Amino acid sequence: MKLVTVSYPLNRSGLCLQHSHSLICRRSLAQRRYLNTLHAVESSDIVKVAVSQFPSAAPGRFINDNTAFVQQFPVRGYEVAPNQRASMVTIANLLQELAGNHAVGMWGRAEEGFASLPNAPDIIFVMTRLQIRMNEYPKWGDILELQTYFTDDGRLAARRDWLISDTASGKQIGSATSTWVNINMRTRKLTKLPEDLKIHFMRFADPQGRMSIPVEETKKKIPDLDADLQVEGPSQVARRSDMDMNSHINNVVYLGWGLESVPVDVYDGYELYEMEVDFKAECQAGDTVKSLIQPITHNSGSPEGNGASGTKHFLHMLLKDGSSTHASSELVRARTSWKKQVEL
Amino acid sequence: MKLVTVSYPLNRSGLCLQHSHSLICRRSLAQRRYLNTLHAVESSDIVKVAVSQFPSAAPGRFINDNTAFVQQFPVRGYEVAPNQRASMVTIANLLQELAGNHAVGMWGRAEEGFASLPNAPDIIFVMTRLQIRMNEYPKWGDILELQTYFTDDGRLAARRDWLISDTASGKQIGSATSTWVNINMRTRKLTKLPEDLKIHFMRFADPQGRMSIPVEETKKKIPDLDADLQVEGPSQVARRSDMDMNSHINNVVYLGWGLESVPVDVYDGYELYEMEVDFKAECQAGDTVKSLIQPITHNSGSPEGNGASGTKHFLHMLLKDGSSTHASSELVRARTSWKKQVEL
Repeated sequence: MKLVTVSYPLNRSGLCLQHSHSLICRRSLAQRRYLNTLHAVESSDIVKVAVSQFPSAAPGRFINDNTAFVQQFPVRGYEVAPNQRASMVTIANLLQELAGNHAVGMWGRAEEGFASLPNAPDIIFVMTRLQIRMNEYPKWGDILELQTYFTDDGRLAARRDWLISDTASGKQIGSATSTWVNINMRTRKLTKLPEDLKIHFMRFADPQGRMSIPVEETKKKIPDLDADLQVEGPSQVARRSDMDMNSHINNVVYLGWGLESVPVDVYDGYELYEMEVDFKAECQAGDTVKSLIQPITHNSGSPEGNGASGTKHFLHMLLKDGSSTHASSELVRARTSWKKQVEL
Repeated sequence: MKLVTVSYPLNRSGLCLQHSHSLICRRSLAQRRYLNTLHAVESSDIVKVAVSQFPSAAPGRFINDNTAFVQQFPVRGYEVAPNQRASMVTIANLLQELAGNHAVGMWGRAEEGFASLPNAPDIIFVMTRLQIRMNEYPKWGDILELQTYFTDDGRLAARRDWLISDTASGKQIGSATSTWVNINMRTRKLTKLPEDLKIHFMRFADPQGRMSIPVEETKKKIPDLDADLQVEGPSQVARRSDMDMNSHINNVVYLGWGLESVPVDVYDGYELYEMEVDFKAECQAGDTVKSLIQPITHNSGSPEGNGASGTKHFLHMLLKDGSSTHASSELVRARTSWKKQVEL
């Protein structure tokens, strides 16, 4: 489809003689002459542009005998931080989009939610853990290629992994892994995937059970915060625009809330290279959320102390604000790892 | 560039004999046999998928002798509301992305900000008004085609318009217009574009001065709110992740804040078909923002009263919360128009 421009005949005052409801032109003859003069000063009739064609991004498709799914994404301008680089939040959004398109590719597009399992409208997949590791972040206009694949993970869970590459360099710049469980929407309880559905599901699984992050570096316990060491960042308010197709606050929003409490010298002077998130409960638009943070030090028992070799590590907790009758409830626990930014 | 899957030889315990840092496979032989069985039950070697190829979206390019710019955008899953439809906030983000890419196309990619004017690093374009009109909203996975063009608007301002089409139907589903002024970043004051720069700039202007919304329906005054009729919605907190390449809270975030105060029966039962926004001041990450709203009634002097023919109209005001030493300051004034949703 192409949008076509129509040139309208002008009367002496520069007003259109023809117009449609949505396309009205009104310009004085003097202005028209000015423009014509401008066009005339060019040696060629057409003005030269700096970038005449932008690179295209390949749409989603299956690879590896339909056991993995890839898609290219241009990083959009509203998805980058002041340094023009995509943030961890943007990366998480793209991982989710790829997972959603992968599901649509396998099962078809559903009328509601991200995708429904065939013949099991009550059963949904819920992400309980997400770990993203980034070596570098793409800039506005860069085109990323993301690949995803999944397999089962024990009797009750599934694992989905991602590889993140920069198409310009061909280099892998990040990886991610996640754990999913099945919930019966009717009973709101954890459920085992029925055997026939599991067989159906596993037909699309990665036959090698590839892991994008070495297994011994995944699923590391995120400890509770120490009440004496934790610091409370600015409270966050869940927005209506944070609600997603599953009618709950989108998972990725919690990552952003966690990052709000990071000290400003770290947020500005360090690069977030890893984020591990345990999702524990949901909240709704309008809820107020407390974002707590605690630096991980040698004393707290972690082998990776802050300050050593230019890296810093933090524990995070998000709490839904309680009322007089309800205690605060834990929504998310997370760990972030930062490395000192290289001065250019 | 393609991501390639490598099959690793497995030893008897199912562990990889070869692995790279980021690609380790570990699966028991029993699991492998289970998977092989699953694959064997298929009549064909390759499992069938519901959607094998997703539609592609054409990248940005100039049209009309380089006086307009078009780009196609797939609507991403994290950009839609619970009803799977893109929101006004998403549309505004895409308008901004197209404008940014258009600027990059004309002037080249800058190392900071959205795009710098050539030979005038201190002068930036600032949007002071945005009006978006949507007949219908696209769904997740739909591909939009957006077109944009600009021209001068009086001695000091410029106007940028957009047309929004659905590529599947070829139908125009929305339109938008905006007003921009130049600010000298050094003096923080309104400035006239130097004449040589204006000539340079106008070479890319739409020669017909097309308007995507009829001129008499644009730039209508958004009146002050009536203290007796206004209602305060939930306070909003500006997030770090709301900051954009110009190191301020992205314009589009204000639209979302405005919508937070709309009564729930309208937000859920009506469709927002028009939003007019006056941008008056900026705020920073960490600021608390009050979102005020007032229904427009016949009595308030507006010809378009609420309730008539299934439409509702509201005035909005965003205020940066004051402190003991500073009064609250007005950030944004807006008007929204809603039509009753058709039950499907």
